[in-house]
Formats: sequence, C-alpha cells, structure tokens
Amino acid sequence: MTPTIRTLLIANRGEIAVRIIRAARDLGLRTVQIVSAADHDMLAARLADEVIEIGPAPANQSYLNIERILTAAKESGADAIHPGYGFLSENAEFARRTKEMGLVFCGPDADTIERMGDKVNARAAAIAANVPVVPGSRGRITDVAEAIAIAEEIGYPVMVKAAAGGGGRGIRVAHSRRELEKTLPTAMSEARAGFGDDGLYIEAFIQRARHIEVQILADGQSAIHLFERECSLQRRRQKVWEEAPAVMLPAAVREELCASAVRLAEEVGYRGAGTLEYLYDMDREAFYFIEMNTRIQVEHPVTEMITGVDLLREMLLIAGGRPLTVGQEDVQCVGHAIEVRLNAENPANNFMPAPGVVETLTIPGGPGIRFDTGIYEGYGIPPYYDSLLGKLIVWDVSRERALDRLAGALGELAIGPNPTTASLHTALVGNVDVRAGDVSTNWLEAWLEEDRMTALPSGTA
Amino acid sequence: MTPTIRTLLIANRGEIAVRIIRAARDLGLRTVQIVSAADHDMLAARLADEVIEIGPAPANQSYLNIERILTAAKESGADAIHPGYGFLSENAEFARRTKEMGLVFCGPDADTIERMGDKVNARAAAIAANVPVVPGSRGRITDVAEAIAIAEEIGYPVMVKAAAGGGGRGIRVAHSRRELEKTLPTAMSEARAGFGDDGLYIEAFIQRARHIEVQILADGQSAIHLFERECSLQRRRQKVWEEAPAVMLPAAVREELCASAVRLAEEVGYRGAGTLEYLYDMDREAFYFIEMNTRIQVEHPVTEMITGVDLLREMLLIAGGRPLTVGQEDVQCVGHAIEVRLNAENPANNFMPAPGVVETLTIPGGPGIRFDTGIYEGYGIPPYYDSLLGKLIVWDVSRERALDRLAGALGELAIGPNPTTASLHTALVGNVDVRAGDVSTNWLEAWLEEDRMTALPSGTA
Repeated sequence: MTPTIRTLLIANRGEIAVRIIRAARDLGLRTVQIVSAADHDMLAARLADEVIEIGPAPANQSYLNIERILTAAKESGADAIHPGYGFLSENAEFARRTKEMGLVFCGPDADTIERMGDKVNARAAAIAANVPVVPGSRGRITDVAEAIAIAEEIGYPVMVKAAAGGGGRGIRVAHSRRELEKTLPTAMSEARAGFGDDGLYIEAFIQRARHIEVQILADGQSAIHLFERECSLQRRRQKVWEEAPAVMLPAAVREELCASAVRLAEEVGYRGAGTLEYLYDMDREAFYFIEMNTRIQVEHPVTEMITGVDLLREMLLIAGGRPLTVGQEDVQCVGHAIEVRLNAENPANNFMPAPGVVETLTIPGGPGIRFDTGIYEGYGIPPYYDSLLGKLIVWDVSRERALDRLAGALGELAIGPNPTTASLHTALVGNVDVRAGDVSTNWLEAWLEEDRMTALPSGTA
Repeated sequence: MTPTIRTLLIANRGEIAVRIIRAARDLGLRTVQIVSAADHDMLAARLADEVIEIGPAPANQSYLNIERILTAAKESGADAIHPGYGFLSENAEFARRTKEMGLVFCGPDADTIERMGDKVNARAAAIAANVPVVPGSRGRITDVAEAIAIAEEIGYPVMVKAAAGGGGRGIRVAHSRRELEKTLPTAMSEARAGFGDDGLYIEAFIQRARHIEVQILADGQSAIHLFERECSLQRRRQKVWEEAPAVMLPAAVREELCASAVRLAEEVGYRGAGTLEYLYDMDREAFYFIEMNTRIQVEHPVTEMITGVDLLREMLLIAGGRPLTVGQEDVQCVGHAIEVRLNAENPANNFMPAPGVVETLTIPGGPGIRFDTGIYEGYGIPPYYDSLLGKLIVWDVSRERALDRLAGALGELAIGPNPTTASLHTALVGNVDVRAGDVSTNWLEAWLEEDRMTALPSGTA
C-alpha cells in the first residue's frame, strides 16, 4: 500500500461498508467503522478493527452529518475516508472538508464532484470531449422554420418542451414533420400562457431506451474503462437487476461507447472510480451520455466478475496516490455476470418495506456465485435505511448460462420469514423478454402494472 | 442437455454431493440424492429433488453398497449415476454394474478404471505415451557393472531396493558412484539372505518432491488439459491445501507436463474428467507420472477458478454422450487460486476428529471467494464419515494477492464451537515458507513435528 493511507474510516453502512472493509483488509489497512445507534449489530461493525458510534439513527444525525464523521475520523486516527455510495459520497463539501483536515477522500476532488454533479456542466464537458449527448437545440427557439430545421437534423420522433417549463409540463412529442408543424403553434401559445415565454426546446425523443453505463478508473492523468453494464430493469428509476456486458450491443458501438467514457474522464482530469451513464436509443441505435456518478456503484460487482479487477482495491490505491496499476490492455471481458438486488420489500404488496429480524438465511454457493451482504442469520434489519439486504451475483461463460445459474442460485437462497424481492427475481429470470434481453427502461413497470406479482407467494423466496 | 440423462442419482454425500446437484440443476436435470439413515439432514438432501434412504450409517451398508444404490436408481427412475470422489468412485465393478443396468456411469468405463487403477498398468501406459515415469531399471539386476551403468544414466541419488522385497525393507540410498559401489554387494547379500533372491531394483531417489497434478477432460477421442494443481502441503498423504497453477514451475516444464497428460489420456482413450498425478523432483527439475485418478477430485475448484470451466458440468455433458464442448484454445489460465480444506479436527490435539453440532457458521464473502460445503448453521456432523466440513477457495490476480485474500477470508470464517483446521490454515497462510512456495511434500509433517500447532488456540477459528 502507499505510505499515505494506513487507517481507513468507512463513512457508510450495510453491504458496501463490508465490501470496503474487505478491500482495505486485503491491502493491510486498519479499518474504522462509524455506526449510528441503530447499527451496532451490522456485519460491517463485526468485521472492522474499530467501531465508533457517531449519533442516533436518522441519517442527518449520523451518516449525513459531516461534523460528526470528521470528529470520528480525527479521534480514531484515520488518515482516509471512504464514502461508499449514497449518503455523502457525492457531496463536494464533505470531500473538501475531509481534504482540509489533511485526510484522504476516496473519490475525486471536490471541484470534479461539483462539476460532474451539475448536469449542464457535465453535458458541456461531454460535448467538449466529443461524447454524444441527447441531440437537441442549443437554446430557446421561437421560430417555426428553425424548429423544423433542427427536428429534421435530429430525426423524428422529437420532444418539444417549453424552455421555461419544468416538471414534465408542456411536453409534446412529434413523430413526423407533419405532426411537428401542427404541434408547434399550440406548444408556443401554451408556453406563453403557462410560463410567460413562448421559447421552446427541442430534443430527440427516445421511445425505447436501454440504460447502459461504463465503469472507469482514472488517476488524474490517464483513464481506462472496464467495459459497460446494462441496468435497464428499473422500478421508479431504481435499478433492480444489472448485467455486464450489455445485452445485444454491436461490437463497434461498444468500442466507441467505452472509448467515449475514457475521453470524458480524461477531459475532466478524473481521479478515482467513476461511472458514466448513457441512454442507448434502441430505435436510432445510438448512445447518449446523460450523467456521471463520481463514486463506486451498487452494481460494481458485475464488472469485477467479468474483468477480475477488484474495483475497491483500485479505488484505495488511487486515493493513496498511486498511478493506475491496471493498464487498458490488462482488462479483458470474459463471460457474463448478472446481479440481482435483494430488498426487504414485498413485491406482492407494491414493494412495501418489510424490515425485521432475519431468522433464516441460506446463501447459495458453488462456482460463479457471489453474495455481497451486510446481514447474517439473527440480524435485525433497522427500519431507518434503504431496504437493500444483499446482492446475488452470478457469473458464467455466456448470458444464457448465467441466467440458468441465477435461477438455480435463487432456488437455493432463503431469507425469512419476511418477504424479499427474491420472488420478483425468480419471476424475472424465467421471463421470455428478460431471457431474450429485449427490455427497455420502461419494461419492468409496464410488466408490474399487469399485476403479475400478486400471483407470486408473498412469503420467503 | 443430451437426450440420455434426465435424472441423476448422486451416489455420494457431503460437499461434493451439493456440488454435483448444483451442476445438474444448472443443466436442468432432476436430482436424486441417496442418504444413509444418519444423513437425512445434510445440505445435499435439502437441495435434491428426491431423497432416498438406502441403509444404515456404516458406509458398507449404504454408500459402498452397490446393490442398494442400484435399487435406489431403479426405483427413482434415474438414468445416470454420479459417484463423486471416494466411496465407489473408482470401483470398476460399480461402473460395470451401472452400465449393465442400462444406466450412465459418470466416469470412464470399467476397463479404463481397472487399467489406470493398477499402478503397473498405468506406468506401462505412461511409458507407451512417452510420459516420464520415475526412472529405474526395467527388471531385476544381479550384476554390479550393470547396476552402476543404470545409476549413472538415472543420475544420483538413487534408491536400491531388493527386487523381491516390499514394505520399505531392504531400501538403501546412494548419493554417488562411490557410495553405490560400496552399497551394492551388501544390498545383494542382504537381499539373498532376506528374500532368497539377490536381484535388485534401482530407481531415482527423489529427496525433495512437489506434488503436481494435471486436470484433464476427454471424450474418448480427444483430450484437453486444464493446467495443473499443486498439492504439496500434505499430512499423512492427505492433501490439506491446494493451489492452481503450481508455484515456481518454469513455463517450458508446465507446457510439457500438461502436454504429457493429454498424450496419456488420449493413449488410453479416456472419457470423462480425470487427474494425472506427478511428482516434481525439485533437485532434478523433472516431473514423473505416478498415478491417475479416474474421477473428480476434492481440489477441482481451484482449476475452475483459474479457467472459468465448470468441471462437473463438463463431466455430465461427456457422460451424456456429448463430444468435448471446450477446446484447448478456450482454456486460459488467469490469476491464482488456493483451496484450504476445513476439517472437523483439532490441530492442537493431533488432529483428533471433532464432530458435533455446528452452532455458528459465518461464511466469508466478497470478490474471489468461494465456499463449497455440505453443512449449515444448526447441522449436526455425524461421526461416521470423513471430517471434511467445507472448502474455502480464493482467487486473485496473483499468488501473493490470493494469499492476502485467503488470510482475510480466514479471519471472517467462523465455525463453532468445535475445533476445525481453520487454525492450521491461519498459521500456514502467515508462514514464510508457504508464502514463498518453498515447500516439498515432507514440509508440513516436519513443521507439525516441531509442535507448532499446540501453540494455537484449539477453539473456533
């Protein structure tokens, strides 16, 4: 390990805290786990070298409380902080304050977090790096002829929004020039009536999108990609199932996608692990950058499974000041990995949270199976935090075989007595669209609206 | 799957039964688990589609009882039997009887088992395939000049045995021509006095050997290798720790070693998964074939971890009549894997068996960690069988990192309250010789004789 990090404070909880502790331990670091008063029993607290309670359960008094976390870091002699995901992981002030205290923040610097956290700035950086973004007009348009010219350039369907609007109001879709010509005058007068401004904004309308993201590692000088993940199965914009590599992505598109992510990371002088999120337009067969996550992500294990690269280890090494130890030529994509999120929620009852004591826990095993969790048999899930119980990750040489292996592993998994989303995944793994990989980001909600989950048992998986 | 296998009977118990069930399940096969009266609670019985009790606990009345197993196969409608390792896995009669009943035996045919199970026949097959065997005289030698000529060809040190002797009697070692000239007359007269025959046998004396074995898969026509494993850490000829690939093996030696295994498998028309065991002479830097195991081995997971090939799946496919689905060019060796055997034994008390109820079981997790087991929390280990509780397997990009990861995983592992060999492995993973890979097959016993294990806690790991 580098000389700069000896003791690492984990400013997070649950399965990601366990994951960070394991990576730190493999590097010989001492680990300090902060806990809220409700979290003394969590697995990470059992594995860490030191545990410090920093406040009551509500996150704003503990995991979101910068003062208390920095005090704990000082008291424990930590020289670095890993923020995990969620909580303060993309909080520029936290990164800045950590650095001002002379500690290492395991993530990019505060300026990069700020810059990439702002969607307008991130889009500008993408354009500067020649990374495709969702095509649209540069600014407000008030002229019908100009609007049509832009729409023709983008290609139909297009979305017409009131430039001054927001929250989905005043949005219209035109599938042809004819429709657009009809829509524009109405849209302009509505915009004037609704927002006192008849300016419009036009952008490509993506009917069927797949969510594809690229994992990168960078040391401030150069960046590498670790291929892409697909996370199209979402409910209420929450990913529930992730894969690597993406399904049915033409090789040339994959190559350009991953290269674009490296360009953008290098453009902004990125340092650390990061993810560039894209929408893939299934009709236009084109990808567009949307935003960057300047932290480790929940679904990082699928990338680890196809590449063999330990992303948390690399994050810690980069944070400690090392240049990249993995070269682009070292990163090969082998086989296929799928992660499913096991949440303490009841899919048969509108995903109602179902915390409580885990009385039985049978974890699947065997080749190509990984289970990342922060729970154990007898553990009481506190009701204060997100409902992620664990992540079941499978790898096999092909997607079809990974699906078969996932089906078998789900059959072995038992978390009881409260309901979990395992029953959802059991239904999904047998679904013909999921098996074909023929799903867009709207697929899961439409499928759930058909009310299929109510036919499933609400009990243990 | 092939048309010939639909229902598989597992003629074994413990962790390997679980492993077979998982592979069968991934292929969509129905599984039938035989159990002795003492084994109804084992994990494999919980995972199988059907469970049949075949007799009382003593193995000769159940897992070694061919009649009862075949009756269970008939009753359950099984069309194939997997024998696992140990028990009847290398019993030619069992293979023959299974086939005579019209069922598939998941292993080579009875003739091959018989042929390769006989050390003299196996040695002859090796010589025919131009695979090196421990160099020695072809037959009895009664002439001093001839003995010296052979010894000079083999190279010193050599072992001089009475051709008619056995059980270690009448063995002498000569480290030079001078010593041999001195030894020969005495050896001859002792042989004449002891066995009524002054004929001698001369063979290379291997002072420091490493145990290296090559995994192969073959379909009766062609064979492929899946690189080698090293299993030099042994106690009473029982492997306790295995790695893949072998440590410090020159690339040219590895290539020739693996190629020799393929030649031998093809020479005997092998079909199924098999392992060719070799001794590697650390002084002569040469390898010699010793014997073949015509079954899956305990340590197969390390090969799966470095190659990504599911060996049990391939065994089942081959047994079902498929030609090899994996080509030699598809098999790449990536990273390094280590397996440690967790036995219900007390290393601090001469490895006294310690069966009983598993009250606590914490299984390590995270990237590169696999735990193959047949137990669970609350399971009572019966006293009738071998003491293997499970196998902790780790993978990482290099041996050094795999050792670090193993150390961390052993720290997380908790099996209690009875002692296990986890404490032995915790001592080994920190040992300077083990870390350097500088161990021969005698190393562990010598190290244990230094009485180091009594310093270790006898409790849980």
